[in-house]
Amino acid sequence: MNNESNPGRSGQRIPNGMLQDNAPRNMWWIAAKGDEVSDQPLAKWLHNTPIVLYRLTDGTPVALDDRCPHRWAPLSEGVVKDDNIVCPYHGMEFGADGQCRKVPTQKIMPQNVCVRSYPVRESGAFLWIWMGDPESITEDPVDMSYTSDPGWSVVTGYYEVEANWVMIRENVLDLTHIAFLHANTFKQNDWVNPPEAYLEGDTVVYKQAFAAAPLSPLFCAGMGLPEDKPVERVQEGRMPSLAVSFSDWNVHDPAPEEGRRSDFLMRGCHIVTPSVEGKTHYYWAAAFDVPDIPDEVAKKTKASIIAAFDEDKALLEKMQSQISCDPRGMDYPEITLGADSAGVKVRQILNKKLAAEGRNL
Amino acid sequence: MNNESNPGRSGQRIPNGMLQDNAPRNMWWIAAKGDEVSDQPLAKWLHNTPIVLYRLTDGTPVALDDRCPHRWAPLSEGVVKDDNIVCPYHGMEFGADGQCRKVPTQKIMPQNVCVRSYPVRESGAFLWIWMGDPESITEDPVDMSYTSDPGWSVVTGYYEVEANWVMIRENVLDLTHIAFLHANTFKQNDWVNPPEAYLEGDTVVYKQAFAAAPLSPLFCAGMGLPEDKPVERVQEGRMPSLAVSFSDWNVHDPAPEEGRRSDFLMRGCHIVTPSVEGKTHYYWAAAFDVPDIPDEVAKKTKASIIAAFDEDKALLEKMQSQISCDPRGMDYPEITLGADSAGVKVRQILNKKLAAEGRNL
Amino acid sequence: MNNESNPGRSGQRIPNGMLQDNAPRNMWWIAAKGDEVSDQPLAKWLHNTPIVLYRLTDGTPVALDDRCPHRWAPLSEGVVKDDNIVCPYHGMEFGADGQCRKVPTQKIMPQNVCVRSYPVRESGAFLWIWMGDPESITEDPVDMSYTSDPGWSVVTGYYEVEANWVMIRENVLDLTHIAFLHANTFKQNDWVNPPEAYLEGDTVVYKQAFAAAPLSPLFCAGMGLPEDKPVERVQEGRMPSLAVSFSDWNVHDPAPEEGRRSDFLMRGCHIVTPSVEGKTHYYWAAAFDVPDIPDEVAKKTKASIIAAFDEDKALLEKMQSQISCDPRGMDYPEITLGADSAGVKVRQILNKKLAAEGRNL
Repeated sequence: MNNESNPGRSGQRIPNGMLQDNAPRNMWWIAAKGDEVSDQPLAKWLHNTPIVLYRLTDGTPVALDDRCPHRWAPLSEGVVKDDNIVCPYHGMEFGADGQCRKVPTQKIMPQNVCVRSYPVRESGAFLWIWMGDPESITEDPVDMSYTSDPGWSVVTGYYEVEANWVMIRENVLDLTHIAFLHANTFKQNDWVNPPEAYLEGDTVVYKQAFAAAPLSPLFCAGMGLPEDKPVERVQEGRMPSLAVSFSDWNVHDPAPEEGRRSDFLMRGCHIVTPSVEGKTHYYWAAAFDVPDIPDEVAKKTKASIIAAFDEDKALLEKMQSQISCDPRGMDYPEITLGADSAGVKVRQILNKKLAAEGRNL
Repeated sequence: MNNESNPGRSGQRIPNGMLQDNAPRNMWWIAAKGDEVSDQPLAKWLHNTPIVLYRLTDGTPVALDDRCPHRWAPLSEGVVKDDNIVCPYHGMEFGADGQCRKVPTQKIMPQNVCVRSYPVRESGAFLWIWMGDPESITEDPVDMSYTSDPGWSVVTGYYEVEANWVMIRENVLDLTHIAFLHANTFKQNDWVNPPEAYLEGDTVVYKQAFAAAPLSPLFCAGMGLPEDKPVERVQEGRMPSLAVSFSDWNVHDPAPEEGRRSDFLMRGCHIVTPSVEGKTHYYWAAAFDVPDIPDEVAKKTKASIIAAFDEDKALLEKMQSQISCDPRGMDYPEITLGADSAGVKVRQILNKKLAAEGRNL
Repeated sequence: MNNESNPGRSGQRIPNGMLQDNAPRNMWWIAAKGDEVSDQPLAKWLHNTPIVLYRLTDGTPVALDDRCPHRWAPLSEGVVKDDNIVCPYHGMEFGADGQCRKVPTQKIMPQNVCVRSYPVRESGAFLWIWMGDPESITEDPVDMSYTSDPGWSVVTGYYEVEANWVMIRENVLDLTHIAFLHANTFKQNDWVNPPEAYLEGDTVVYKQAFAAAPLSPLFCAGMGLPEDKPVERVQEGRMPSLAVSFSDWNVHDPAPEEGRRSDFLMRGCHIVTPSVEGKTHYYWAAAFDVPDIPDEVAKKTKASIIAAFDEDKALLEKMQSQISCDPRGMDYPEITLGADSAGVKVRQILNKKLAAEGRNL
């Protein structure tokens, strides 16, 4: 337990640390959507750290501490000039490696003037950042290239959620809540029996087949299916990293209309990155293996997904707020169900990763 | 002193604990007005605890911890179905006794799945709750039956006050402030000499007679008296519990008009229940021993009382905010006057009750 | 380091204590502009202390603790009557010396009923207050008489800045930021080489001459100069107290129009007084040695100064907020440049004064 933040004893058998800084640092997290980052500065809080993102003239993304080492002004309030970021306060300039290139008010460059530069990788529509020990980078970030593959149509969205990231992670890995929390939006009320999840290395996976039933209206439009047509469904969940998980909706239409495909895939993607204490950047993507979905279909799909995810956001924020305010905090009984099979594995991986960093919940 | 919240040393000779959780638990407090609670869930923070209130089909009120023991969602966001409350997140159902009745995603009921159920009693227009040790219930809550007695006309109101409950308690038990804080609303400027308060068991009481003078316009309408007519007044205060106090205005008209009553009673009632830290549910009731007061009279009475009580709310909130913000906190001189006779007894009872719970201010 | 507020270890070689209560008490600070204070109460938070200011009938300013010693109500919510301030709650009256003069509800005056009265001095347009040990008053406050001298035209403004006062102090004593932060407002882009500052006693001073160049449009109007006319400039900075600093713009027009003055002075003045934790009262004054500047010129001057100072406020508040939120807090590298010559002396004086009060950053 982190005594400083004193979140109280835990009624959780495997703690998820939701009232403290519980995010491992030695792993890739998603910093931004690639199209958010331009040749001018973008400020982001990532893991309680102010970060400034921008692109060099050749498009290379850069991530620096958003805090000038002179008098601590946020560099993101300045501009990028000739690939250097210029501090808004006294005009000091820093390169992509974080080294100071210019101090306008003097000729002598003081020693060791730099800000921390963070490793960044771009994959598909997303930018990954490594905020832990750079020596510990032993793996590539999860491949997101499908999100910029013209064979897919991808609808994305973003929320700043006032809840710890692990609550979102547990939410999206136990989809039995669809039948209850989303009864009026997803309208996919057959997901009541939970799948058994298992580990492939550190990847959590599960797979479940559903008998023919009308598909959730959230995804019918993208697949061009009528909302009342029974289709078969195989659901595959996969969390290759605490930062990102996928939920594949493999849909089989047993009686396709003349000239229509019988099989479709919608790959749901849930991305979480801790922001400031108690807040999380949450990106989602719904990718259909259908090229060139018309704009109005994408727009309709996005609106219907947002209506559903708003329900998650509202509930998770209420939970976080209530648990934070309740003096019992984490010291409250917690019952684990069969449906928490994947969520429990999330906590196991979380605790293992934190232990490897010498941190324990 | 509670060192955790560290409110600072106290300049108070008898501390009232206004900057900390200073409310005894082993007593009845008012949870809600009865008519707020229906067959669907109502969320309330009581004593820093999220509580959900609802009624069974037969009208019986129920109070449960508003926190599902599975993943800690607020039950109040769900619905009541067949007298059970259904968790909004994964559909678990709980009975009035707090026991889990159903887990939709599995056939086997895990052991010990329950939320805490709190004893509740209804009396007149109000619901009482016992949030301490249920084994310690040795008395009934204060009888509020007059508030639903057809012989009385009762006007009520509610404030969420951003001040500790004991400040409201001390406010309503030293009514010499009427002549100053409420000079322009109560217009009852003869209450300058304070009454001597005494204890009858743990009930604080006082009684004071006032010479003929025009009655406060707040109460004239309810009694059908002109605002300029001199009437005699005997004021009786009574606090049978820290949770509730009464202020009886016994009015005698020495020269009633033909066919009119000469004596009236207005029973003021002040109810406080701690909400979250630093906030208090404050219910008030003004009951006239006059049946069937017309709606427009009740409406006018309510508006004029609100105008006066707004003055208390504004001042008490400013006091609480200022004392909280001032680094000297409780470590400031406090002079006690004769007018604090009742207020001091409130503190004595408070300290005695807390000591009995092993807590000290 | 102040362990209570635990701002973290400091990367600063000379700490400025910007995340804690870092203001010396044994010195004069400015409490208000004189014209803010009338014969009725004015509430101000000064040095984390609620203060009430008012004037006696003869105009003498008074400063008292804004907290009644009876039940801690803010006296500033009351009224002043016959030179005494009347508590809004129960009508107790206090004189300018803080002694209680009247308790309306009783004949016997309790012993030692008083609030603290603070020494106050008026100088020019401003009121000074001494909040430390009154025995330590060994000097007069800085003379501000020029601000009410008819030989000057004075434009003033006020901000509540959500930043520690010392950040404003450092800001106004390193004006090389004009060329960067204010590039679009001051348009005085020749201030890139910093002056060397030195100490005259505890007064920080610097002086710097600038070759002929167009004057900042902020000050042209006040001097009746065209915005494109090159003029010579000698800049003199002076901080006689942590509470107030001056920046003199001595302007010489080498080719004045027929009948026009060739020399002008604009005295900038920057006044800071800590308010509540993390907030600062910031008064500024721009005084021209030109009598009777027309209203429209004063108005235009004020608007253009505000446009520039808004830039400081926005940046300083972002810095304070970001540094407060960043768990690294003060434990971040800090490089000092030649341009910080005056700012470093501010910190030296600050640390010396705090040490004299037995406090250390």
